[in-house]
Amino acid sequence: MTQPFKGRIGIIGAGALGAFYGARLARAGHDVHFLLRSDYETVKQHGLSVKSFEGDFHIKPPVYDSPESLGTCDLVLVGLKTTNNAALPDLLKHTITPETLVLTLQNGLGNEDAIAKALGAGSEKQILGGISFLCSNRIAPGVIHHIDHGQIRISEFGQPVSDRTHAVAALFTSAGIQCEVFDNLMRVRWEKLVWNIPFNGLGVAAQANVEEVLQSPELHDLARNLMLETVASAEKSGTSLDPAIVEKMLKNSESMGPYRSSMQVDFENGNHVEVESIIGEPMRRGRAAGASVPRMEMLYALIRQRDSRL
Amino acid sequence: MTQPFKGRIGIIGAGALGAFYGARLARAGHDVHFLLRSDYETVKQHGLSVKSFEGDFHIKPPVYDSPESLGTCDLVLVGLKTTNNAALPDLLKHTITPETLVLTLQNGLGNEDAIAKALGAGSEKQILGGISFLCSNRIAPGVIHHIDHGQIRISEFGQPVSDRTHAVAALFTSAGIQCEVFDNLMRVRWEKLVWNIPFNGLGVAAQANVEEVLQSPELHDLARNLMLETVASAEKSGTSLDPAIVEKMLKNSESMGPYRSSMQVDFENGNHVEVESIIGEPMRRGRAAGASVPRMEMLYALIRQRDSRL
Repeated sequence: MTQPFKGRIGIIGAGALGAFYGARLARAGHDVHFLLRSDYETVKQHGLSVKSFEGDFHIKPPVYDSPESLGTCDLVLVGLKTTNNAALPDLLKHTITPETLVLTLQNGLGNEDAIAKALGAGSEKQILGGISFLCSNRIAPGVIHHIDHGQIRISEFGQPVSDRTHAVAALFTSAGIQCEVFDNLMRVRWEKLVWNIPFNGLGVAAQANVEEVLQSPELHDLARNLMLETVASAEKSGTSLDPAIVEKMLKNSESMGPYRSSMQVDFENGNHVEVESIIGEPMRRGRAAGASVPRMEMLYALIRQRDSRL
Repeated sequence: MTQPFKGRIGIIGAGALGAFYGARLARAGHDVHFLLRSDYETVKQHGLSVKSFEGDFHIKPPVYDSPESLGTCDLVLVGLKTTNNAALPDLLKHTITPETLVLTLQNGLGNEDAIAKALGAGSEKQILGGISFLCSNRIAPGVIHHIDHGQIRISEFGQPVSDRTHAVAALFTSAGIQCEVFDNLMRVRWEKLVWNIPFNGLGVAAQANVEEVLQSPELHDLARNLMLETVASAEKSGTSLDPAIVEKMLKNSESMGPYRSSMQVDFENGNHVEVESIIGEPMRRGRAAGASVPRMEMLYALIRQRDSRL
């Protein structure tokens, strides 16, 4: 068994995702530090509460209101909404040394690249990426509702997986979070996108939840065609996926009921949506590699238009 | 010069379109009879007012509250929203004899077919179709606002154009309405669709007016691609259009400013939109003829989903 990663852990982007995983790690006894903005005063005074289907708990962790006061960490977990990726250089500047590991669990494509760009040449080797299957909401300042799931898949961005990857996975496992190591980050990310592109995209463009997409013959066909364009984009840009994934994901989605994707929730709350990382970047990579992506392009155009009104 | 058509004229679907043309014909001295529903009492008591950029006027025409009381006509002008086409059999049953001409100025494809189906086998020869370029709104019961344009293009549905086609055109011309006869109804309808599909469709799916579509690089590209799919659908289903129409229509639309298409207006007023005649039927005909129409299919799926919520 690999020993869990040990060191000072910083949580950047402590929303429904970052705060949840940070709180679970802190509860398990790890040295976790939270960078907060709007929730800073509340959490400083009252701590962080997690209402979870796996059991409620409360912690009182060290919190910071600036990257400077957080200071350098051994591992930084990035849970920022990708709509805020432009803030990455400022957020990472004071917290990362050449020895720090950075793990992004953000949605979509291009986040590891954005972090590498923020940190500068040669930083690729410090970066790990992954995806989480987590249903959670921030329901009040300092209060996270953990509705379902929580498992993670991680991989390396700038080098092959190694002991350190497994140590980070063991860190999550030690906190009761299922975490698997995969040797191909792009495959992990593209597989998630096969679901995310249709169901997040149509959550906004058709304002339809998962059940509504599956029940409309036209939207069901459209979701399938968007999945096929995503598989083709992955393939053309160098990541082969099992073509059976499309029918499998459509089938598996039937048990989700009227689930609203994160993008639909953001949209209905009047917030910006993660259109660049979830749709724009996969579309651009697929198109650049020669894939035909008319539906992804159309989804992107429609959602950009709506997002531009905010 | 062909003499204008003479006879008893019935207006069915006396909304912003039907009421406007009917009122202009009535003002010019023709024998025009209006079938009304919600506006019946108002128009019966106070008449019909047209506020027009070409001059306001008021008429007090004979009005009816049922097809039975309207009775048989020599010419029926159908101005119904195509969302109400299911009512055509009932509306036409008591007003049409085997000698009656029926002219539909409704939007999109399939309206002549719906009328022929309502009237039964052999009725194709009674039917004329056309399109109008008209900016008008019904702003209150019995009050039509004529904002701009008004010209008409007509053709025959079940036989070649002939003297009677020109007589109907002369009827409109005698009322100051520019009306041209074309020998190919399908070309007239498909040409209009080259504009209507992108700008009506994106008026709903992107909630973008003409100016917003043209100003967004992504939506502008999408409008062009929808136009190209429409031209290909026309071509494959037997109607050749000049390919230069696409760039010409995009260019001409620049002078329209923030114009909202009828479908966008209907949508924003919470009404059903003419998605079947303007998008669904062209899509089905194009697809059946072997055209690739992924964007039209997607537009149809998105708008159907939104319309199904009403």
